[in-house]
Amino acid sequence: MATTVHLAGEGNDEAHAVAEVIAAGRRASARHWVPATSGNFSARIDAGRIAITRSGVDKGALLAADILIQPLDAPLLPRSSAEAPLHVALYHQHPEIGAIFHVHSPAATVIARLAEAEGRVILNGWELQKALAGVTTHEARVEVPVFANEQDTETLAARVDARFAAFGADVHAAPGYLLSGHGLYAWGRTPAEAARHLEALEALFDFELSYRRFTP
Amino acid sequence: MATTVHLAGEGNDEAHAVAEVIAAGRRASARHWVPATSGNFSARIDAGRIAITRSGVDKGALLAADILIQPLDAPLLPRSSAEAPLHVALYHQHPEIGAIFHVHSPAATVIARLAEAEGRVILNGWELQKALAGVTTHEARVEVPVFANEQDTETLAARVDARFAAFGADVHAAPGYLLSGHGLYAWGRTPAEAARHLEALEALFDFELSYRRFTP
Amino acid sequence: MATTVHLAGEGNDEAHAVAEVIAAGRRASARHWVPATSGNFSARIDAGRIAITRSGVDKGALLAADILIQPLDAPLLPRSSAEAPLHVALYHQHPEIGAIFHVHSPAATVIARLAEAEGRVILNGWELQKALAGVTTHEARVEVPVFANEQDTETLAARVDARFAAFGADVHAAPGYLLSGHGLYAWGRTPAEAARHLEALEALFDFELSYRRFTP
Amino acid sequence: MATTVHLAGEGNDEAHAVAEVIAAGRRASARHWVPATSGNFSARIDAGRIAITRSGVDKGALLAADILIQPLDAPLLPRSSAEAPLHVALYHQHPEIGAIFHVHSPAATVIARLAEAEGRVILNGWELQKALAGVTTHEARVEVPVFANEQDTETLAARVDARFAAFGADVHAAPGYLLSGHGLYAWGRTPAEAARHLEALEALFDFELSYRRFTP
Repeated sequence: MATTVHLAGEGNDEAHAVAEVIAAGRRASARHWVPATSGNFSARIDAGRIAITRSGVDKGALLAADILIQPLDAPLLPRSSAEAPLHVALYHQHPEIGAIFHVHSPAATVIARLAEAEGRVILNGWELQKALAGVTTHEARVEVPVFANEQDTETLAARVDARFAAFGADVHAAPGYLLSGHGLYAWGRTPAEAARHLEALEALFDFELSYRRFTP
Repeated sequence: MATTVHLAGEGNDEAHAVAEVIAAGRRASARHWVPATSGNFSARIDAGRIAITRSGVDKGALLAADILIQPLDAPLLPRSSAEAPLHVALYHQHPEIGAIFHVHSPAATVIARLAEAEGRVILNGWELQKALAGVTTHEARVEVPVFANEQDTETLAARVDARFAAFGADVHAAPGYLLSGHGLYAWGRTPAEAARHLEALEALFDFELSYRRFTP
Repeated sequence: MATTVHLAGEGNDEAHAVAEVIAAGRRASARHWVPATSGNFSARIDAGRIAITRSGVDKGALLAADILIQPLDAPLLPRSSAEAPLHVALYHQHPEIGAIFHVHSPAATVIARLAEAEGRVILNGWELQKALAGVTTHEARVEVPVFANEQDTETLAARVDARFAAFGADVHAAPGYLLSGHGLYAWGRTPAEAARHLEALEALFDFELSYRRFTP
Repeated sequence: MATTVHLAGEGNDEAHAVAEVIAAGRRASARHWVPATSGNFSARIDAGRIAITRSGVDKGALLAADILIQPLDAPLLPRSSAEAPLHVALYHQHPEIGAIFHVHSPAATVIARLAEAEGRVILNGWELQKALAGVTTHEARVEVPVFANEQDTETLAARVDARFAAFGADVHAAPGYLLSGHGLYAWGRTPAEAARHLEALEALFDFELSYRRFTP
């Protein structure tokens, strides 16, 4: 009986994660942040599994059949996105992460390329920074790591891990990172928090780009 | 009986103010002016009470349960926004204010930061200035005060009061102020007027930023 | 009988013009071209009358009661917009004009201010110019007159008349004009043509501003 | 019987192509990429026929009656768009093309004019390039040809053919080309692929323009 209840619970968790992924894709598509079937979205079902968008679908028209149930310790399923390893690696390293959303939004994509040489974007002086978990003042220095783009996503995942492991204490590590000329990965403990982080980061990058047009 | 009628009237005023706050949040969210649960919205119920959004909710999906009924002379209610003191102070000082809307809209947020050192944005030469109460010509000089951002909102509220009290007669004081890198507070005698002021100010700041890109 | 039929026809023309004005306001509002109750819209009913938006209403939420039936040879009706004289003067001078739409759209408002000293914006080299009646090639030079803004709209209407009367043959006169820091007036023989001209001109000004950011 | 089935199949293909053209116009209109009745859209029905929008209609409100069934080897039908020859020429030269979408989107229109002298836009370093068929890395150099605008579309079609025939092997030829100050033609093997290419190219041009504002 316990098993039956447990399985039912698992089924609910799975359906819930799938629904969150579909909703996140739809919201991002409405903002034009995932043009031309780009972007990918995932949510943790439990300690060992995630729900993640498959490769090559319009994220504004996701169906449940477009969402893969990927065990974290198994090989990637057929039809997986080329970027699935970046999701899997983050869920492995950070058990507290509950959802990861990746978009090709314009401000993130462009600021990442402008900041590739420096390897990071520092956010400072914006009230909206406080939408990022753990940030309590606009005076905080929030560092968003920027990585050179790389088609080998296993290699890229390792670089991301190394960078976050070595993160200094002088700045607050943002719940996200940038890939130069590519876009933004943002995450949170829950899908709602990941969505808040995604929305805050793209708005902050947009503020930053607009501000920089007037400041040499 | 009079009391009963009075209470009924109060109930209607309260429900009306709550509905106005919900509508204002929805409109601002549709414009992407309150990203990541930022912003807050309030409307006066009567001389002693306001309806105001609680902390940390998506302003595009407000429910009546997300709106607090805050007495102006009582301590802030649990779940109040950190910025509730800025609302309360304005309602106290200016009995004619009927609604206050605060957003993190992009033009306001960026122009405020660009103008922080100067302490104000002067609007002049735009026909749309006439959407601000009391402004009858594009030739008016309209001053929107800019304050440095500050996490202690009681302190900030006092600075705002002092500034408006000392306002000179050579310029028209706008129905709003800016917080550097933070956003815009706009108000009006009614929710409709506050909404008009909010929309006019963000459009004016957008015109101004666009114009400044071409004028050294 | 003839009279009855004639009156019915008039009633239909009036209802039709009112519906066109409401639709034009709604479309402009959806584009955020009439912020804070700005803008005004009119359509000709017959040789002697127009339907025109009254002052101070949200153009995205127009009702039939917000539209005035203004005889062209009578004094302005109560609640008329301050800019009604600009509409009336154009209908008087140009019997072929069937509709006039005025907006505070961002590209028009800003480019008008940048071009105030020169007194005109020349459009040249854009395919979309061909959406303007009588323009058959991107090689045409289309001149959009720019007038300094002016609160006395009777005076302004006279300036507009004089300018169009004196229009040279070397350029194509656009079906619209700009007011510096104010916005755009566009017209057409029908409401559909006026809408097409409005949409084309704002897009052309947006192209032009974007292009100028890269060309000294 | 076979004939009957075959005819039914043809009818289905035709209805399907018409529906795809209508959907493409609606999507482009929602993005404001076809202002003032500009743009045109076509889909191949079979080896000898295409469905194509007629001249002068609002692409956001297409009806089946606005779509012409044009044989590729017959003279252009009455009411054809002036740009129909550009579509017909591409379908003739490239049997694999299944749909062609042409828009006056802002980034494409402006970047084309900026790049007219150089005759091409090179895309390099953007992950979104991978949304273009055959591009497998952001390191690819993707060349989008730019042609001077020209009202004689038969002449223009010949230039386009010549350019693609002579295309070098050092860069990947994009599934589209630009007309200076005019807009973008994009195509694909299917309507879905053409839509993906259109959306990717406009986003890439927008990234590129935004990036160039910060890089001398």
